[in-house]
Amino acid sequence: MREAYHVELEQLADHLAAMSVQVADAMERATRALLEVDLGLAEQVISDDAKVDDARAQCEEQAYALLALQAPVATDLRTVLAAIHAAESLERMGDLALHVAKAARRRHPEPVLPDAVRPYFAEMGEVAVKLARQTEQVIKSKDVEAAKTLESDDDQVDDIHRHLFTVIMDREWPHGVAAAVDVTLLGRFYERYADHAVSVAKRMIFVVTGKMPGYGSDDDI
Amino acid sequence: MREAYHVELEQLADHLAAMSVQVADAMERATRALLEVDLGLAEQVISDDAKVDDARAQCEEQAYALLALQAPVATDLRTVLAAIHAAESLERMGDLALHVAKAARRRHPEPVLPDAVRPYFAEMGEVAVKLARQTEQVIKSKDVEAAKTLESDDDQVDDIHRHLFTVIMDREWPHGVAAAVDVTLLGRFYERYADHAVSVAKRMIFVVTGKMPGYGSDDDI
Repeated sequence: MREAYHVELEQLADHLAAMSVQVADAMERATRALLEVDLGLAEQVISDDAKVDDARAQCEEQAYALLALQAPVATDLRTVLAAIHAAESLERMGDLALHVAKAARRRHPEPVLPDAVRPYFAEMGEVAVKLARQTEQVIKSKDVEAAKTLESDDDQVDDIHRHLFTVIMDREWPHGVAAAVDVTLLGRFYERYADHAVSVAKRMIFVVTGKMPGYGSDDDI
Repeated sequence: MREAYHVELEQLADHLAAMSVQVADAMERATRALLEVDLGLAEQVISDDAKVDDARAQCEEQAYALLALQAPVATDLRTVLAAIHAAESLERMGDLALHVAKAARRRHPEPVLPDAVRPYFAEMGEVAVKLARQTEQVIKSKDVEAAKTLESDDDQVDDIHRHLFTVIMDREWPHGVAAAVDVTLLGRFYERYADHAVSVAKRMIFVVTGKMPGYGSDDDI
């Protein structure tokens, strides 16, 4: 039974790694759709989101089967539950990428972002996608050290996000209220995505090693 | 074993009901803090949030113990997992009430909301709190019919939320960009809170009856 458990847990981890790639790709494309005003890419992210939802359902079924058939206890039980939580966060990350893509589509052919804030989103997007890809690496390499850079990367997103607010709130903001509202919501989507990515990566460390690193702070607003 | 399982599941449901009350109270107070520019109430919500986090940890421990000691399968297993998900959503609802309270505190003694949008938040707050209180009722009464009104109430929050955007986006919006940003984020907090409340209520129906109603849509942005 112990061996079957570990084989099944490894398969579950593989599926979660694949989900990490899916949501990293989704956010990468959504960010390009946003920055390059690319309707085709936005549409692709929107139609691909159902696959992320399916992947989550599959991971959950697999975890349920593992619980029902192996009845793990102690650390093994927590590991499977960590996987269920990770799948939930990954699906949510997919939703957030979807929101970015929908914003790009809603304003098309106009750009959503005023030029002045494009660099902030380019950077937040890059770091957010990197975080999602790191979770995949943590699983493949089982290299927990690699995962420790995650929190400092997340701090970077929080810093940009905070700075973005000072830019919008500046009395000189010349782009009007509608643009400010779009930028506010988009900033929040990236911040939440990065936050979920950190939480997923930590749970992945647990799935891979059976040890949970400390919880980071929740979103900072 | 079956009897022990049901006693423990009932206790877990009681704790989740208590958590529903906690987060309903938190959002009720946060909304009053926002509308009445009441710093004391805002501070109370902020300091009480740790109790919601503790309650979630306790629910999770209880669910883990139930899984480890009773090794439930089939519907029983799904019921316990639904409880774990519900506890996570309830904690998140507490966080969202906390965000509203922090917004009220951040602008104090200035009101966060321009007078023109106060009625929208009064109504969103009322419906959101009602949703959280309904989840408690579902558990206490085991009355699934009562739970069916939840989705139409959530639609009401979505309608107000959408309308709020048209108000902010109106070219005549005279309150400036900073107020628009605050109102945008606050609107989103209520919308997410209501969405989580519906998801919790549905999971509660599952915990109480062992049958899951259909999933509603995710947030609409």
